[in-house]
Amino acid sequence: MKVTSSEASDAASSPLAVPGVSVGTVEAGIRYPGRRDLVALSFHEGTTAAAVFTRNAFCAAPVIVAREHLKRCDFKPRLLLINTGNANAGTGEPGMDVARRSCEEAAALLGLSASEVLPFSTGVIGEDLPVDRLVAALPELIDARSPDQWEAAAHGIMTTDTRPKAGSRRFSAQGKDYVLTGIAKGAGMLRPDMATMLAFLATDAPIAADVLDSLLRRAVEASFHRITVDGDTSTNDAVVLAATGASGDSLCENADSELAHMFAQALESLCLELAQGLVRDGEGASKFVEISVSGGADEAECLDVAFTIAHSPLVKTALFAGDPNWGRVLAAIGRAGLAELDVTGVRILINESIIAENGARAAGYVESKVAELMRRDELRLGIELGRGDARAAVWTSDFSYDYVRINAEYRS
Amino acid sequence: MKVTSSEASDAASSPLAVPGVSVGTVEAGIRYPGRRDLVALSFHEGTTAAAVFTRNAFCAAPVIVAREHLKRCDFKPRLLLINTGNANAGTGEPGMDVARRSCEEAAALLGLSASEVLPFSTGVIGEDLPVDRLVAALPELIDARSPDQWEAAAHGIMTTDTRPKAGSRRFSAQGKDYVLTGIAKGAGMLRPDMATMLAFLATDAPIAADVLDSLLRRAVEASFHRITVDGDTSTNDAVVLAATGASGDSLCENADSELAHMFAQALESLCLELAQGLVRDGEGASKFVEISVSGGADEAECLDVAFTIAHSPLVKTALFAGDPNWGRVLAAIGRAGLAELDVTGVRILINESIIAENGARAAGYVESKVAELMRRDELRLGIELGRGDARAAVWTSDFSYDYVRINAEYRS
Repeated sequence: MKVTSSEASDAASSPLAVPGVSVGTVEAGIRYPGRRDLVALSFHEGTTAAAVFTRNAFCAAPVIVAREHLKRCDFKPRLLLINTGNANAGTGEPGMDVARRSCEEAAALLGLSASEVLPFSTGVIGEDLPVDRLVAALPELIDARSPDQWEAAAHGIMTTDTRPKAGSRRFSAQGKDYVLTGIAKGAGMLRPDMATMLAFLATDAPIAADVLDSLLRRAVEASFHRITVDGDTSTNDAVVLAATGASGDSLCENADSELAHMFAQALESLCLELAQGLVRDGEGASKFVEISVSGGADEAECLDVAFTIAHSPLVKTALFAGDPNWGRVLAAIGRAGLAELDVTGVRILINESIIAENGARAAGYVESKVAELMRRDELRLGIELGRGDARAAVWTSDFSYDYVRINAEYRS
Repeated sequence: MKVTSSEASDAASSPLAVPGVSVGTVEAGIRYPGRRDLVALSFHEGTTAAAVFTRNAFCAAPVIVAREHLKRCDFKPRLLLINTGNANAGTGEPGMDVARRSCEEAAALLGLSASEVLPFSTGVIGEDLPVDRLVAALPELIDARSPDQWEAAAHGIMTTDTRPKAGSRRFSAQGKDYVLTGIAKGAGMLRPDMATMLAFLATDAPIAADVLDSLLRRAVEASFHRITVDGDTSTNDAVVLAATGASGDSLCENADSELAHMFAQALESLCLELAQGLVRDGEGASKFVEISVSGGADEAECLDVAFTIAHSPLVKTALFAGDPNWGRVLAAIGRAGLAELDVTGVRILINESIIAENGARAAGYVESKVAELMRRDELRLGIELGRGDARAAVWTSDFSYDYVRINAEYRS
């Protein structure tokens, strides 16, 4: 077993330091006093990076600037600058100036070019980011950096999260040991105006930017893109992966090498842990639900079915109630758009119990037994389509009174 | 003005009788005692009809049988038989037998062939329909029929609806006067297991089945297909339109004739009224919201934007809260999948007030003024895309605590 979850893989323990990365936090007073609301991740010279940004057509100013800078610095950024309290989204041209100025000021202090700094913001949207307060806090932030501040950074990037999300993996290739550490915040796509999904990961393995890019896209596809709370996406979502190469080995440029393979495994495992952590911490979520679809003609149709179920408010309120309402699941499958679906071949399971088949309640179905399963905090809703060998899973939560309360009262 | 809403067009007044149609209701005790839960609409010989059924791949047994019978009787049904209390959905082969037997027994009493009877069911799914009780009530139901029982029928088809939905239109063509009356039930696609959307309309105008079919599809597209509560569709949804031709005039077979044109106007107007009535009566709905998208390159993209907003739980909870949260609307527009959307050209309006433009809050925006508009029971959310001349509107409601309560506690 070459990839191991560190003892520190759950959020309660400390994430591992990554050679070549130093981390700092500071109170800048962006929105609330007494919050360490400005975070820096700085990287050793020669660090390579890749990033995945929101697919929303409305991108916040920092997303546009980060994308520009990443390209301009040839995928070798030296500093990630992350503020909470204000998303700098829906702020027009003035917001672009603010994002650029933050990078310029930080770069000047560190003797970097502005394009080596990538800005990230999360918080309220449509309000001007108080850039002077951010800039005033930069010198203290830069002084505060040290290798062991990952946990403070995981706290620093939180907005309405109730707990930090951080984890590490150790992996080895060709006799060398490496580490991968990541932090994440946000309740998935739960609240685009205050809970943008952000994740930052770094390894000391030496991996070329284009290899990082393809491995990150694959890992994100199987993790952050397979969680949903309510189907909404944010204007600020971003996942960044950096490889410092601080181990001093020569750069891995081959996606089929042993190192790339071992790293990919660690990356996928950590991204999945962080992504599931976001769903578990979704405010108003009382249940963590895996929706697992098998027997599809291809993976795409398995995902269509899984997301249609995961986005159904009727299914989500039934999950909240602990009601094994297979009729709602069946109706969601029926509108997922599958061509020539033979409905008599579909089975629905809760954990390992078959609750519906042949278009009707399963013969051995005992409601009290299934209702007991559904009262648990975590459950698996299985769908067997009976038309092929493909499978896919997504992770979601339920719709509760708290979901309405949090999202209805949020700005008041 | 040739098409007039009758004085009876709102649900509180009585719908108009339609020559050639008689209507009856009876207590069959399908699920609850003391409910007139079995309804018949019978048509004069020679009546033509058209129907639109659910697009869900899982169709309830009565939908499958109604579709078969309508074809087999050459679109000339004589009786619609509608029960509440049990949807006869998710009931497998035994459910098909029950639907067929209901038709056979009713046909035998009236000297019809079984295929001249169309069955409709709404209520709980996954439980056997007590067909013996239904059959036992048929003789009384048939005796109870009279031309003026439309309002009783509008009550009879209700499940969790809080009020009946019924309306009429008068129209004339070539010096002759006609009437169109319709009833509907259900809270749109709110609860597929107990609130299937059903609508039944009839006119005394003489119109060929294929003309009815094309006019009905167009009217449904612009009304029942443009309302949404939560994006879920039912296994039992159906809209049926009958033309008795009781006026004795010759059959209109030309969709471009004056009669077809005047009838189409009346039909579209009544379908829209009934559809909007379903949204207004959606349980847990505290607001009625028109989402009106203009300036699109084509109607399809206007609908994509309108439905993405209408289905966003974040927008719907903000509407419940009366919060003019344009950031959530903007994020929903941004993920609607429009190719090359220039976000700076998009405007968002509440009623006539511009709240966001150029990717930011509008210059003259006064939150207190807009918040006042949003406290009203009805409002219009306008989106101007600024890329063409197409437009489309959909109607929806908000997400409230009651929505969660009703859907979470529903089966208990």
